[in-house]
Amino acid sequence: MSGGTVDVHTWEPNANSGKPLFALHEKRVAFTHHYVDMGVRAHHEPAYLALNPAGTIPTLVHDGLMLTESTPMLEYIDAAFPGPPLRPADPAARHRMRCVIRWLDNSVCPALAMVASNRLAAPRFRDTPEADKQAALAKISDPERRRTWRLLMYDATPADELAESHRRVSEGIDRLDRALGEAPWLAGDTFSLADITAIATLHSLPLAQPELCNAQAAPRLTQWLARMGERPAVQALAGYAP
Amino acid sequence: MSGGTVDVHTWEPNANSGKPLFALHEKRVAFTHHYVDMGVRAHHEPAYLALNPAGTIPTLVHDGLMLTESTPMLEYIDAAFPGPPLRPADPAARHRMRCVIRWLDNSVCPALAMVASNRLAAPRFRDTPEADKQAALAKISDPERRRTWRLLMYDATPADELAESHRRVSEGIDRLDRALGEAPWLAGDTFSLADITAIATLHSLPLAQPELCNAQAAPRLTQWLARMGERPAVQALAGYAP
Repeated sequence: MSGGTVDVHTWEPNANSGKPLFALHEKRVAFTHHYVDMGVRAHHEPAYLALNPAGTIPTLVHDGLMLTESTPMLEYIDAAFPGPPLRPADPAARHRMRCVIRWLDNSVCPALAMVASNRLAAPRFRDTPEADKQAALAKISDPERRRTWRLLMYDATPADELAESHRRVSEGIDRLDRALGEAPWLAGDTFSLADITAIATLHSLPLAQPELCNAQAAPRLTQWLARMGERPAVQALAGYAP
Repeated sequence: MSGGTVDVHTWEPNANSGKPLFALHEKRVAFTHHYVDMGVRAHHEPAYLALNPAGTIPTLVHDGLMLTESTPMLEYIDAAFPGPPLRPADPAARHRMRCVIRWLDNSVCPALAMVASNRLAAPRFRDTPEADKQAALAKISDPERRRTWRLLMYDATPADELAESHRRVSEGIDRLDRALGEAPWLAGDTFSLADITAIATLHSLPLAQPELCNAQAAPRLTQWLARMGERPAVQALAGYAP
């Protein structure tokens, strides 16, 4: 357990950026927030790369130790700080928590990101000059991230990939709704990092997918969203939007 | 901590199948092994699906509790059984361990699997009748896994995806070699689940990539492979090949 200085660098309190903010509020840890404007790709600029050479968001700096990767970061936050535990103590329940997080990270959240970015971000690049697009892409070192941004900038995501993402979103909502019929929280009887991971991306689901995520089609998921919305940590996140 | 019955269902002691076998031997846990022949896709057959509906390998059954997903499974094995700890106690070192595992799982291991399967498995399907291929594909419910198998069966992996996998393998070897110059084990000063995850896939690297993985090009990685090969748990794995 440790106190010390805590600095968190995130974009808007959504998806991966929302995860450490949410967890630190649940643990009641004081920290300094630094806003990184992903909209102008500030995370690909030298100032941010000097902090985190991988250029990923979020970054956590705890007493001079730089930590990346939001999912391992959540486990670190729970282990390194005092406050309410965010992981079940029982190894089987903890395994269930990690399987839910893995499924969200690898399947549901990328699918939601592809659907949302194609609807919201791709149109913004329509009037961007070609040279500016090329310059922006040249700053992205990871080939897979560069491909994602290129497809977005040129509105060129293959139709079958987009269709598969829509299928995963729909299947994901069904599976979450069923899981929440079996237990009150995503890892079972206790609130955990699985709920934090899920709400960081799913909080806007009723607005983004109104025909799939509503009180009739997904009643347990809708109730869970309402319960999550009552948590002070979720309410505090609104303060981190610019 | 718990004893009880332990059943492990794996293919050959390689990649994800090797991980629980290796960890249980390190913990000195007695277990019953069940061989699942992935070569004839026994994991897509009803008998296996009755055990694990997702049809993934490996499956661990501990006192009647069915567990899947080899990476969370490794954390479960370390937490649920007595024996030497396989995770560093310090939260920062544990975070480093999880970041290494995440990188291996998401980038290096899929790249190695694509390279190896295109060289070894794809040619085996050349003489398979069309109807047999279609029947085999129809049994795979997950669309992404079905796509991977379809590309493999028809030797149709796109050239740019294969080139990107070769790049990741080469970059991965460099990065592992540098990391092992900074500390004796992949998560730092102590042997951990990161080393287990790595050796499960990398044990055959000097044979698979002799021009990249040798004592001149990657001296620290070569020394680590030799040290790993001396561990009784690695030597025991040879017993699980059919």
